[in-house]
Amino acid sequence: MLLHEPLDARETASPAARMNSMTQAREVVVVGAGVIGCAVAYELARRGADVLMMDPRGVGQGATQASAGMLTPYIEGYSHGPLLELAVRSLALYDQFIADVRADSDKPVPYERTGSLEVSTPDDASDRLSTVAKDLAAAHVPCTLLDAAATHDAEPLVAPDVSGGLLIPEHGYLVARDFTEALVAAAARRGAATSSPTQVRRLAAAGRDLRVETDDSTVAARHVVLAAGCWSGRVAIEGVPPVPVRPVRGQLLHLAWTGQPLRRIIWSPRCYIVPLGAGSVLVGATVEEAGFDERATVAGVRDLLDAACELVPHAWQAGFLGARVGLRPGTPDALPIVGSSGRMPGLVYATGHYRNGVLLAPLTAKLVSDLVLDERTDPALAVTSPDRFGAAA
Amino acid sequence: MLLHEPLDARETASPAARMNSMTQAREVVVVGAGVIGCAVAYELARRGADVLMMDPRGVGQGATQASAGMLTPYIEGYSHGPLLELAVRSLALYDQFIADVRADSDKPVPYERTGSLEVSTPDDASDRLSTVAKDLAAAHVPCTLLDAAATHDAEPLVAPDVSGGLLIPEHGYLVARDFTEALVAAAARRGAATSSPTQVRRLAAAGRDLRVETDDSTVAARHVVLAAGCWSGRVAIEGVPPVPVRPVRGQLLHLAWTGQPLRRIIWSPRCYIVPLGAGSVLVGATVEEAGFDERATVAGVRDLLDAACELVPHAWQAGFLGARVGLRPGTPDALPIVGSSGRMPGLVYATGHYRNGVLLAPLTAKLVSDLVLDERTDPALAVTSPDRFGAAA
Repeated sequence: MLLHEPLDARETASPAARMNSMTQAREVVVVGAGVIGCAVAYELARRGADVLMMDPRGVGQGATQASAGMLTPYIEGYSHGPLLELAVRSLALYDQFIADVRADSDKPVPYERTGSLEVSTPDDASDRLSTVAKDLAAAHVPCTLLDAAATHDAEPLVAPDVSGGLLIPEHGYLVARDFTEALVAAAARRGAATSSPTQVRRLAAAGRDLRVETDDSTVAARHVVLAAGCWSGRVAIEGVPPVPVRPVRGQLLHLAWTGQPLRRIIWSPRCYIVPLGAGSVLVGATVEEAGFDERATVAGVRDLLDAACELVPHAWQAGFLGARVGLRPGTPDALPIVGSSGRMPGLVYATGHYRNGVLLAPLTAKLVSDLVLDERTDPALAVTSPDRFGAAA
Repeated sequence: MLLHEPLDARETASPAARMNSMTQAREVVVVGAGVIGCAVAYELARRGADVLMMDPRGVGQGATQASAGMLTPYIEGYSHGPLLELAVRSLALYDQFIADVRADSDKPVPYERTGSLEVSTPDDASDRLSTVAKDLAAAHVPCTLLDAAATHDAEPLVAPDVSGGLLIPEHGYLVARDFTEALVAAAARRGAATSSPTQVRRLAAAGRDLRVETDDSTVAARHVVLAAGCWSGRVAIEGVPPVPVRPVRGQLLHLAWTGQPLRRIIWSPRCYIVPLGAGSVLVGATVEEAGFDERATVAGVRDLLDAACELVPHAWQAGFLGARVGLRPGTPDALPIVGSSGRMPGLVYATGHYRNGVLLAPLTAKLVSDLVLDERTDPALAVTSPDRFGAAA
């Protein structure tokens, strides 16, 4: 029963509400309070739904607490095909989504669209960035290919051997922890409740409702949104095989930055560096198949330190605030799992966002809310449907 | 008012005791609850003194919380001359001291005399370890010089390029946090009280007593032991210049160890690795003049990771539990400052132990207790006297 921060009375379900035993069904229970669960709960509540969000770990934990908060769909190799389409749609929703969250939460969510600078070094394939630039130009995405001198003008802190760069002005970042806390506060302001059961054990049908069984209580709901990240497969669902999400470990460093600040996200083939406010930066990230092991490692920390110092030598002067580790929810086809279950009416999945949870949060919130409240099926759900794995979900 | 762990009623001064306003003088107030303050308070209480120990940071903080707990006076270059004499005397007290602390605290202090293995590589001066071995043999200190094969037999995990080693069986280590907590518990069992004022501001004479002024209260004492580590110079002492201690930053890594454990302390010119129980090791340590900045740094963490992996390649497989930072109390001549003030009767210094706080704790406790309770002056105090700095203390 540990929440990330003390929740005020409106944010926390009362003991009586927690012990609610099927007497009155919630309209929606959201299982999982990472950035996806919080965005979904907020959007549902904003549209007037009666929402209870529950997460044994509390708010903004799991992959979210280790997220660098990047909003960078056009980085080379980062997303492509249907994933890129989802990412671009979600990015387009972001200005309004942040404005709503700020207004409803009264919290100043740090959110910047400073652009990103992807850089190349002489070791890279010489045409890597120019190929990306041509593709983006063809898609009418504003971007500027820079030579070595212009790259150093754009960001004087990059290493002397950086030989070129690609500036993408639309890109940006937010502070994922602050964002998630603001989402919860905004959802609460809109009437959503939050609880932190010891464990969410099982979902089962109960007449025309669903039953969410936790270690502490049983809650009835018309709809359940499963947004439990890499743990989504661990919630037993009566008669439905586990959803095929797996943990993909990401390590991230939090460094204290002094002197000249970075102007925007810097991205190299080995790492990225995201400037945060208040004199710190995040350096990410490893991508590791390590099961549910949430520990940082010597190899991961050393690799990130090396990569950061190679990209921006000034990182040698930085303080070391700590390593963060998140388990991203990976899927077999690297696409998220968003949509209604074909096997259990009332169950909606919102999981499997892998490295893109923050970026895809506004779109996921919209798609799920449209489905749950208006039975509206967006064409995007064709690629994210949980039914695409056949027997698996 | 934060203590390292909740103290039970016997360990904490009551509010009434804290507000004690000169009505009844304590026999001894110990300012500072690092390993030195705790050892002194315990020894005084064990001999029957009425002791109050106070530290705004709580128990076992400061340099102590980042100590590797090594008991290694004979490591090359680690101590020499008068410091070596003090260290050897203190090491000889350790078995009995630990036995007393264990008995009085009922806590199992992790304390091992497994020996240390100092290693050389082909880069080293070829006769480095053999010179140390000759000196130790002349001083009748048991040690064994090992060739490359024997070194790898003694510790199979050292790197293939290790070309020799020096085994010193008397060496050992303890877990500094557990040791300090046991000292406090043992001191409490012997009647000592502990308090955690917001700040210790000032010492002044008050008749034949001393007055310890904190932000919360004023306490009278017959004797005051100043054991505030690198912060000792920040306690204003009426009519006495600050003691010349300065912070010397040390960074240490805490790693999770799996697979074959290390058999003993491994020491190279670049780092040392101390095996702890429960599958973890400590890697130390940087030595930095960085003022009172208690942050870990990119450079420090990276250097220690590199050095550890170079010495024991298996460290690549380790988990990264975190970086610890301590500010050691350095002195102009690298010797501790232990003894009575020549300027303020009743004031005794026990500070400036630099890298040797844990090792010198039993001897310091003895010297200070002899002075305070029996007015006995050990010859060792000639080299540790606070008066040696002339006008400075």
